[in-house]
Amino acid sequence: MIDLSCYQGARVLITGGLGFIGSNLAHRLVELGARVTIIDSLIPDYGGNLFNIHGLEDRVRVNISDVRDIHAMHYLVQDQDYLFNLAGQVSHTDSMTDPFTDMEINVRAQLSIAESCYRHNPGIRILHTSTRQQYGKPRYLPVDEAHLIHPTDINGIHKAAGEMYFIVYHEVYGLRATSLRLTNIYGPRQLIVHNRQGFIGWFIRKVLLDEQIELFGDGRQLRDMCFVGDAVEALLAAAAVEETVGGIYNVGGPEPVSLREIIETLVDIAGTGSYRLVPFPDDRKKIDIGDFYADYTRITETLGWRPVVNLRDGLEQTIAFYRANRAHYLPD
Amino acid sequence: MIDLSCYQGARVLITGGLGFIGSNLAHRLVELGARVTIIDSLIPDYGGNLFNIHGLEDRVRVNISDVRDIHAMHYLVQDQDYLFNLAGQVSHTDSMTDPFTDMEINVRAQLSIAESCYRHNPGIRILHTSTRQQYGKPRYLPVDEAHLIHPTDINGIHKAAGEMYFIVYHEVYGLRATSLRLTNIYGPRQLIVHNRQGFIGWFIRKVLLDEQIELFGDGRQLRDMCFVGDAVEALLAAAAVEETVGGIYNVGGPEPVSLREIIETLVDIAGTGSYRLVPFPDDRKKIDIGDFYADYTRITETLGWRPVVNLRDGLEQTIAFYRANRAHYLPD
Repeated sequence: MIDLSCYQGARVLITGGLGFIGSNLAHRLVELGARVTIIDSLIPDYGGNLFNIHGLEDRVRVNISDVRDIHAMHYLVQDQDYLFNLAGQVSHTDSMTDPFTDMEINVRAQLSIAESCYRHNPGIRILHTSTRQQYGKPRYLPVDEAHLIHPTDINGIHKAAGEMYFIVYHEVYGLRATSLRLTNIYGPRQLIVHNRQGFIGWFIRKVLLDEQIELFGDGRQLRDMCFVGDAVEALLAAAAVEETVGGIYNVGGPEPVSLREIIETLVDIAGTGSYRLVPFPDDRKKIDIGDFYADYTRITETLGWRPVVNLRDGLEQTIAFYRANRAHYLPD
Repeated sequence: MIDLSCYQGARVLITGGLGFIGSNLAHRLVELGARVTIIDSLIPDYGGNLFNIHGLEDRVRVNISDVRDIHAMHYLVQDQDYLFNLAGQVSHTDSMTDPFTDMEINVRAQLSIAESCYRHNPGIRILHTSTRQQYGKPRYLPVDEAHLIHPTDINGIHKAAGEMYFIVYHEVYGLRATSLRLTNIYGPRQLIVHNRQGFIGWFIRKVLLDEQIELFGDGRQLRDMCFVGDAVEALLAAAAVEETVGGIYNVGGPEPVSLREIIETLVDIAGTGSYRLVPFPDDRKKIDIGDFYADYTRITETLGWRPVVNLRDGLEQTIAFYRANRAHYLPD
């Protein structure tokens, strides 16, 4: 595995650092001895949650600002060694109802982050995060990085453009950027108050509330689920070496599971909740992609990374976390 | 070949209609009996030129406005049967020096055009134009539509995003959109006053001025050159049928030729101009893509379209046009 001692004493900026993945990364970076600055807009509904850094309050610097604020970004990237770029509008459904806001955050702000780095800190090491959503409906499985980019929604278009900025800024200006395309990530600190940020947070919410989940179709759609702890290790490993600069890597989960299996495992662990199958609503069917699972051979070969937390263990940790901290994620 | 009688009496909107391809299309549509409305911003340096519709002044409606003007677009798309979407910032070098303006025009405005159609004229037939630049440096030749999207500059990123909007709006909302990815288009009515919109206009300018062209590298880079008259026929044929709705098609040229051959043919036809080889400047080398030529099998199989004007004939028409109308394209 990759040596992570480079983060000891390093100045690390995390955009979206109060969000799901960003905050889990912050916890790990503090453990590794990094001097962490978090940028987060705390836009309601987006996933930023101050409780996500509970226990770290005195060990990280929190700067509440929006990545759309070019001048703040110009200032904040300076003197940083690493940038983990996790800020984004992540709701696919919101991207369809308000495509311009999605564009501002996932396109314009990404361009301005790339510009900020290029103009004010060209040596910074950048780890950008993108999504499997770029690929759209798989032409083949598992989906590798050479798969066609054919997003099925506005968010996927914008995430594709955001990633391309960092690759072009690498190729033209030499920015030391790497992009990871994340599959479905789950685990502690994810937003679960509404159902617009993907199915897994919603399933967890319903199970915690002992409610019935309505599962669209036959529930046999396959997904690869990657535990957030595994995703964080991929981010850290990828930014720790030079070999990945300019590269794009899928981050996938262990063997694919059906949505039904995921729910059944959740219900079994939690001892609460249930589900029933309902026909696909028309508007969801149109953007449904069928089965998806990623081929992550490239990152395994380059960094030795692979997902190690299996679904049951990951979901057990997740349920235990939300039960212990329920008031912060499921306010009455 | 495709029957174009559908354009007789049809209401047709052309964005960028005073530009190179848009104005050539306008000439042909008027000939076919269409009721043409042209939208153009006439931004200096972008290619819009009122002389481009010389002879049509009383037969088309010209609306000077910018596709970034959402409210104007909302109004202008109404009651139109066809939209040929040709407005864009086309300079690759400008996209690197001012990426935000390129984003406003090639991304945000394209989203707002798609929104305008969806909200105010969902039945309109849309022919969007994109570019081979999306593919970046070819992984294989000829490049077909399944080739990886890997732009080498900001303009390529934005053109990719702009195209994806129309495909997603087709797939989700049923907009009747088709996108053509154009290779190097040349011919009458192209901007030749500066060298920021591709090499061919610049070569023509230098030859007309009897100047020496500096050709980077060994001049053996291959390109496929498509005469604008052929490109216009592809646009018209693709929008005339339903079979292409939701599809993406390359529009290529006849057999590939080297940059050197292009210049030698030009010099030979014009009897003026010359060239010499110079080493690649660093900043150009970085975004150079080597050989490129498109595989246009898909559009040939679907529509029977293929490029029919060979390079010498096309360049002869081009030189003759500029010589006859020099003051409008090469002002002193």
